[in-house]
Amino acid sequence: MLETRLDLARVRAARRVIDPIFLDTPLYPCEALEPALGCAVSIKLETANPVRSFKGRGTELVAAQLAENGSRAVVCASAGNLGQALAWSGRGRGLDVTVVASRFATVAKLDRIRALDAKLELVDGDHELARERAAAIAQYDGIRLLEDSLDIETCEGAATIGLELVDTAPSFDTVLIALGGGALATGVGHVLKALAPEIEVICVQPLGAPAMTHSWHQRRVVTTDSTNTIADGVAGRYPIPAVLDDLLKVADDAVLVQEASIIAGMRLLLDRAGLVVEPSAALGIAAILEDRDRFAGRHVVTIVCGSNVDLNAYHHWVGAAG
Amino acid sequence: MLETRLDLARVRAARRVIDPIFLDTPLYPCEALEPALGCAVSIKLETANPVRSFKGRGTELVAAQLAENGSRAVVCASAGNLGQALAWSGRGRGLDVTVVASRFATVAKLDRIRALDAKLELVDGDHELARERAAAIAQYDGIRLLEDSLDIETCEGAATIGLELVDTAPSFDTVLIALGGGALATGVGHVLKALAPEIEVICVQPLGAPAMTHSWHQRRVVTTDSTNTIADGVAGRYPIPAVLDDLLKVADDAVLVQEASIIAGMRLLLDRAGLVVEPSAALGIAAILEDRDRFAGRHVVTIVCGSNVDLNAYHHWVGAAG
Repeated sequence: MLETRLDLARVRAARRVIDPIFLDTPLYPCEALEPALGCAVSIKLETANPVRSFKGRGTELVAAQLAENGSRAVVCASAGNLGQALAWSGRGRGLDVTVVASRFATVAKLDRIRALDAKLELVDGDHELARERAAAIAQYDGIRLLEDSLDIETCEGAATIGLELVDTAPSFDTVLIALGGGALATGVGHVLKALAPEIEVICVQPLGAPAMTHSWHQRRVVTTDSTNTIADGVAGRYPIPAVLDDLLKVADDAVLVQEASIIAGMRLLLDRAGLVVEPSAALGIAAILEDRDRFAGRHVVTIVCGSNVDLNAYHHWVGAAG
Repeated sequence: MLETRLDLARVRAARRVIDPIFLDTPLYPCEALEPALGCAVSIKLETANPVRSFKGRGTELVAAQLAENGSRAVVCASAGNLGQALAWSGRGRGLDVTVVASRFATVAKLDRIRALDAKLELVDGDHELARERAAAIAQYDGIRLLEDSLDIETCEGAATIGLELVDTAPSFDTVLIALGGGALATGVGHVLKALAPEIEVICVQPLGAPAMTHSWHQRRVVTTDSTNTIADGVAGRYPIPAVLDDLLKVADDAVLVQEASIIAGMRLLLDRAGLVVEPSAALGIAAILEDRDRFAGRHVVTIVCGSNVDLNAYHHWVGAAG
């Protein structure tokens, strides 16, 4: 019996709460990637929705619950995607949404949070400082603090992706999941290990932001002093103990990839799949590029989890010729 | 009573024949486009599938029928997307697929047709010459000729998009449809006029390939001597009379747009929606850009019908900075 904080019945019920605009996303083989990667790759595309990331699945659950309880306001820290999704879900339900972000966050993400009528507060530090500030606001204002990966709705929202993988995929061997705070990995991982335990769950994190991966391998929380990666969506330093406990139960492996591989992955997704993605969404392809032998001949699903990217930075990374 | 060659019951039945990988594509509002366009725009995204265009909906019907009849082979002329889709659908059913294309066709499309194990024959002329050659092959070999827009499966396959628009959309006022041979426009148009006649159906064609639009306005077939547009997917010169008859019954308007507007549309879809699209898929945005007053304050759906583009040409058109 798989014992994590997640509950499969609640994940199934979540599909009835989440706006269908975030559900049943495309899952399709991309044969044009095969020659470069040496394995069959299917893409689970989480970018074709109003917030261009998978985070709406979780924020829909939170916002629906708050609206039902008569709450008026909610605050979260975010590298940008959670904040955008919470702003979208909150706006539709009349909630006041405050998002705290690093002033170094991706400009496109901050612009979209503002455009969705959320209050945006910037801190002069990294994501961990934003988390502290969001907690302080919640305490001072007496409002709900949404904590990514710790709050079960963020994990169970993401877990609905797992249900879709199990329900609709032709047989595949491995799923590659971007690893940051762990909501996506524990969510999808829980469903796969509960319903299709033969599928290998591999988490992928940048070498420049390795805290959760080191924690997973050492089976205890390992923090880092800094992060250094273009994959802003997964750049945390303080893994959450309860999330690590769950990750230890559902992940078969956690690997680290270099920045050059992330960029090569973004370039391949553009060249071969016609997809503009943010760095976090290319982590799966990066993992294949770094260890082709491991994946040779296998059928791999990679979750393309977000496409909120500053185009100038994107072109700088990927190059004009694609 | 709407009398075209299409049949709504057959369109509904088509959804049970077409591989689900082509169905229930994302439909979502893209608010980031609003400031530039002055109207609400929702995107119906037909590019997140194995052939990166909507054409698989039609070729699935044809290939299923051929397989059921014990046929072994099929030939079509194509600017690239139909051929790629027929190659995909035919391969899965053991059919020998021959595609005839212009040697000036988009290289990425030709490469993908070859990669899908189809026989590719290039003619030294434009798409209309490819049509002649495909017909000659069909006659000589005694095999099925698939004619885009004339063959009802191509229209009724595309029409399943219309069912999805009617079933899942929040209320919208207008749908903008790329117009080439007319399969997409008559297909989607038939369903909308049958089930939601209040929705305005506007076809959009490049000024450089205006034959069908001129024909629609003059209510008779008008041909042109040449085409001159980057929108290769819609560049025909000889409208098919039966398709024009249907288009006259389902389209509320047909408009022509300049090349510069198509490019501006592609750039907006990249900048604001993170989508790399082929020129034909930007025709709807181009139409809004050319007539903002007409669409001001309205809710418009545009069908992003394909993303098979040569990246070098794309960067040349759209620019490196996005």
